[in-house]
Amino acid sequence: MNKNSSNIMALAPNTSNKRETVCIFGTGDFGRALGHKMIQSGYRVVFGSRNPQTSSLIPKDAEVLSHAEAAQKAAIIIIAIQRQHYNFLIPLAEILHGKVLVDVSNNLKINEYPESNAEYLAQLVPGAKVVKAFNTVSAWALQSGTLDASRQVFVCGDDMKAKQMVMDIVRALGLTPSDQGSLLAAQEIENYPLQLFPMWKFPILFSLGLTAFFFFYCLIRDVIYPYVYENTDFSFFIAISIPNRICPVLALILLALVYLPGVLAAIIQLYRGTKYHRFPDWLDKWMLCRKQLGLVALAFASLHVLYTLVIPIRYFVRWKMSSQIISQALNNKTAPLNNTYAWLSDSYVALGILGYFLFVLLGITSLPSVSNNVNWREFRFVQSKLGYVTLILCTAHTLVYGGNRFLSPSSYRWYLPNAYMLSLIVPCIVLVVKFVLIFPCLDKPLTRIRQGWERNPQYSE
Amino acid sequence: MNKNSSNIMALAPNTSNKRETVCIFGTGDFGRALGHKMIQSGYRVVFGSRNPQTSSLIPKDAEVLSHAEAAQKAAIIIIAIQRQHYNFLIPLAEILHGKVLVDVSNNLKINEYPESNAEYLAQLVPGAKVVKAFNTVSAWALQSGTLDASRQVFVCGDDMKAKQMVMDIVRALGLTPSDQGSLLAAQEIENYPLQLFPMWKFPILFSLGLTAFFFFYCLIRDVIYPYVYENTDFSFFIAISIPNRICPVLALILLALVYLPGVLAAIIQLYRGTKYHRFPDWLDKWMLCRKQLGLVALAFASLHVLYTLVIPIRYFVRWKMSSQIISQALNNKTAPLNNTYAWLSDSYVALGILGYFLFVLLGITSLPSVSNNVNWREFRFVQSKLGYVTLILCTAHTLVYGGNRFLSPSSYRWYLPNAYMLSLIVPCIVLVVKFVLIFPCLDKPLTRIRQGWERNPQYSE
Amino acid sequence: MNKNSSNIMALAPNTSNKRETVCIFGTGDFGRALGHKMIQSGYRVVFGSRNPQTSSLIPKDAEVLSHAEAAQKAAIIIIAIQRQHYNFLIPLAEILHGKVLVDVSNNLKINEYPESNAEYLAQLVPGAKVVKAFNTVSAWALQSGTLDASRQVFVCGDDMKAKQMVMDIVRALGLTPSDQGSLLAAQEIENYPLQLFPMWKFPILFSLGLTAFFFFYCLIRDVIYPYVYENTDFSFFIAISIPNRICPVLALILLALVYLPGVLAAIIQLYRGTKYHRFPDWLDKWMLCRKQLGLVALAFASLHVLYTLVIPIRYFVRWKMSSQIISQALNNKTAPLNNTYAWLSDSYVALGILGYFLFVLLGITSLPSVSNNVNWREFRFVQSKLGYVTLILCTAHTLVYGGNRFLSPSSYRWYLPNAYMLSLIVPCIVLVVKFVLIFPCLDKPLTRIRQGWERNPQYSE
Repeated sequence: MNKNSSNIMALAPNTSNKRETVCIFGTGDFGRALGHKMIQSGYRVVFGSRNPQTSSLIPKDAEVLSHAEAAQKAAIIIIAIQRQHYNFLIPLAEILHGKVLVDVSNNLKINEYPESNAEYLAQLVPGAKVVKAFNTVSAWALQSGTLDASRQVFVCGDDMKAKQMVMDIVRALGLTPSDQGSLLAAQEIENYPLQLFPMWKFPILFSLGLTAFFFFYCLIRDVIYPYVYENTDFSFFIAISIPNRICPVLALILLALVYLPGVLAAIIQLYRGTKYHRFPDWLDKWMLCRKQLGLVALAFASLHVLYTLVIPIRYFVRWKMSSQIISQALNNKTAPLNNTYAWLSDSYVALGILGYFLFVLLGITSLPSVSNNVNWREFRFVQSKLGYVTLILCTAHTLVYGGNRFLSPSSYRWYLPNAYMLSLIVPCIVLVVKFVLIFPCLDKPLTRIRQGWERNPQYSE
Repeated sequence: MNKNSSNIMALAPNTSNKRETVCIFGTGDFGRALGHKMIQSGYRVVFGSRNPQTSSLIPKDAEVLSHAEAAQKAAIIIIAIQRQHYNFLIPLAEILHGKVLVDVSNNLKINEYPESNAEYLAQLVPGAKVVKAFNTVSAWALQSGTLDASRQVFVCGDDMKAKQMVMDIVRALGLTPSDQGSLLAAQEIENYPLQLFPMWKFPILFSLGLTAFFFFYCLIRDVIYPYVYENTDFSFFIAISIPNRICPVLALILLALVYLPGVLAAIIQLYRGTKYHRFPDWLDKWMLCRKQLGLVALAFASLHVLYTLVIPIRYFVRWKMSSQIISQALNNKTAPLNNTYAWLSDSYVALGILGYFLFVLLGITSLPSVSNNVNWREFRFVQSKLGYVTLILCTAHTLVYGGNRFLSPSSYRWYLPNAYMLSLIVPCIVLVVKFVLIFPCLDKPLTRIRQGWERNPQYSE
Repeated sequence: MNKNSSNIMALAPNTSNKRETVCIFGTGDFGRALGHKMIQSGYRVVFGSRNPQTSSLIPKDAEVLSHAEAAQKAAIIIIAIQRQHYNFLIPLAEILHGKVLVDVSNNLKINEYPESNAEYLAQLVPGAKVVKAFNTVSAWALQSGTLDASRQVFVCGDDMKAKQMVMDIVRALGLTPSDQGSLLAAQEIENYPLQLFPMWKFPILFSLGLTAFFFFYCLIRDVIYPYVYENTDFSFFIAISIPNRICPVLALILLALVYLPGVLAAIIQLYRGTKYHRFPDWLDKWMLCRKQLGLVALAFASLHVLYTLVIPIRYFVRWKMSSQIISQALNNKTAPLNNTYAWLSDSYVALGILGYFLFVLLGITSLPSVSNNVNWREFRFVQSKLGYVTLILCTAHTLVYGGNRFLSPSSYRWYLPNAYMLSLIVPCIVLVVKFVLIFPCLDKPLTRIRQGWERNPQYSE
């Protein structure tokens, strides 16, 4: 029943005796785990080892022979050995001639060696057909069956047929092979499992820095200032009120920073009169992490929405409201409906809702499976057109929220303006410059430059 | 570091001298961009041009030769030239014999020519192996490295080996090849980048039309009517109150319209007694855009949720509540808890929450990566069973919201019923007809018809 | 226009006369539907039938011949016949020699026969190249064109070239072929369309059971108890208040149950001193459905969020609040701000928001398209590190919500503690044990065991 209750294409145990023999060099943890899984999937497995004696660790249905003997029993040999021991294969070159060698190794650091382990193996045993595979799967995952992340196995190799054979094994083990082309791709495949969200590092560190800055900024304005001047303890603002000031500020700034590099690139291209000169390195890197910046901004916006929606549930808010009502009732007076307030309040909330709604749409379109299903024109339409509309709505949301408080002196405590005022600087700059760039006198030459036209051809590399 | 910090499988620059030579005919923008990217990925690039002189625009590591000379240097020739100039290739037919010609061209309009550019190319140079590829990638994206949307490259061709060679180049450039089969697929591949959400046009235009209608409808009832009769200015209702009437109405109507065509199709099939007669064209088109209709409905439902949850934050609502409380306090009276109201209020909210929750589940299942992982039986279960439960819950939500106001004359202003009453028409029809169709006397023949049985065989085409 | 308005890669009708001939054995519903679709896509179709007479049901452009005549007209023969009639093919073996036979059959039960239908077919006609395909597509879907779920066609077969031919047909019909390797995969492919969310059964049934238990538990405490002792009718609590007690309780318990098996596995491994002994079966199954358990927990958490956010909109809550304010106003007293309450209220809400936010992040990462784009290291970081932070935040949210009510006797009605107290048992156990396991004296041996080290080698199988 285990088989049926799994949602993967695992193979039935009753196909055991139909599969070919596979040889595994090396009886370390990964070799044994792979061997175990292969036996489960119906392969005959022969281990090649320096000390060919069946230890209790080896799966009991497997044979253990010397390297040379084991290699002769199979057409496919999995090299589950560390790179530094590869040279023991040189004397076996004759036996390995024409065999498919599967390199499953990983390194400890990115780009540790000048050439990939698989290419090194191909140099050592020139007569063999080397295929890189399985390095993205962990031994623990293979044995425990919890293969949620690592179902994808990157395969590359120069020999089409050898690659096909390895991909069939991958499928038989219930994994998904992904053909990455020739052995030249091996270096990237070996670097892949060592990465830890490389594209996210900068956006997350940057936003953490900004968060820290605005946290202390708001702490001074909203907690320390009233404590010093009014001797009231609003320290509990740290839990919700201050986060709910920081989140919208960061969401707006980060969203504007997604569109700033595009605007800068346009200015640089207009100034240079060509698109064939490379952008400065920082701009290139910035442009490459725009998606991540945008998603971090969306995370802050979502937190802002949650923090805002819980406002009426908070004890402090309910307390404040009931004391106001009671004092009004005791003073026997009722305030009439202020139409301007009603307009301001409703329109800033409505702008925020629409902005957030479009922001979520942008986020959904950046999901890999969705963005793979739209073409370039559609992607540009969503990320550029809809993106600018989102930025305009969110900026307007903040401006209307400010209302007529921008000029009121009570908004400045110790000469510090409200945090939301600071957050408006970058988006306003982006929107103004973008607005200028839309004018035909600038848009036309820019379009021509992006189609390959050059003002001063000597600029190009 | 650029390489490691990127999340794509790009190839290292140090593999430069290992790749084969590729020839590019045409030194236009796309040809140069592709050449540039190929040189970065380690290929030798030779341009073929009418004026074989290295201009400053050409990547500096590339050679520029005449077409004939360039073609002889490579096994793969990329034709980066517009279709109308293809006939210059006819005199080169002998040199191009056996070569792989990669057609990268696009047209300006969908189905501009009777045959695809790639098929036209294959007719012109019958001895060559034509492969269609790269047309979905933009030159700008290739150069700027921002390949978020266009990572997928559709490849088709009649020669398997030629296709493999091109797919290897695609992978080497850090893109994802997608094999689309033989050259017959070229027309679709050429049409693909010209589309702009073709399936979304009708649902979006239709819902915009409905939105406009209900906006003016509510404007008359909720703003103009009180202004005329009570001389009160509720113009600020435009920001939140009226959108929050329109959104649920549209969500419900559109959701019902997702299930209406299925019901109509069943009636037509029962009437005709066969499934082998084609449906009318409008029904076919309607059925094809049900997913999009449903997602637009979900968008309106989400807006409705947001607009509803901000209600207690709005100034107008807080003002109204406090004036009510104050007037009660001043009149020294407290209303007792009305159990019926409590039941109505809580159950309409609860129905809405459950309906929205299932609606979001339906939306998640329609994400491409999720729906690719369910089989037909599971998809039908979710989209049909769960979908009808959602429709029932949302209709019940609206009915309970109405409560006993349906018959109250105050709900009719200028003889116009409340908008939510109008929204109930379509879903109620769908649910009633579906309920009738579930009866065995109708369900049994319908099931048999859908399995291929026919009442009057003469009907079939 | 039908073609352009579709977002699939369907082929144009004007390519009709370019395709090869395909033979279909069997004129049943699926055979006719497939034939119809193939004719639309430009293939010539010949039906093979016991009674070779064109019936009105057969698509009118197709020929109907005897089996032997039809087979001779095409290189590909689709066997659209039920398995029990396959033996009529034995006398045709000579004609079928070298042909590609496509097995499209499905069974009625999972693992109905010892070998798959396709393998059985290959045994019956050893000279033919058998390919399994099309079994995941329904006839109804083929004809109506509503192929949302079933676009993916699993293909397997031992002959590479035959498989390629079939995959080209799949693509030509606008479907996506997915190569599943050799014919050994046929059994899994045949089982696939019969499944109905096999991995979800246990988590959903389990949580329904728990829901029922907590529903009656809360019913007794919150509705029956006040009815008996205070004679007040709170039956309307069934709509929102009680669901909003059940949902957080279930979300927390299920989330803790996601991490419990990992902790149990660590204890078992530490006790045994090896990882090479299999876990008990129930633990294996439990570990395989952790993702589903987590997603059900997320569903309950989302419902909890919605139920909580609508609190201020409920009639009962507004009534209670205004009666409190009015009674305060009439008694001419105002409560001062209680700083401890403000801290408790704000921090429990803030913890809940942050916990839910991380929970949603975990949910997004488990979307197939997202988890396919992260490597094993990244997936472990998110699901393990972030997962535990989520569990800690949610547990803290519940603890702070309890505040100082844990010891108050009013929390115990009929000796029954509040439901949230029960919900804390499992998460607290998981967190305490996990905390103990982090200590170096336990973490070090565990890490070594997971890398393959063994304390008592005799334990291994």
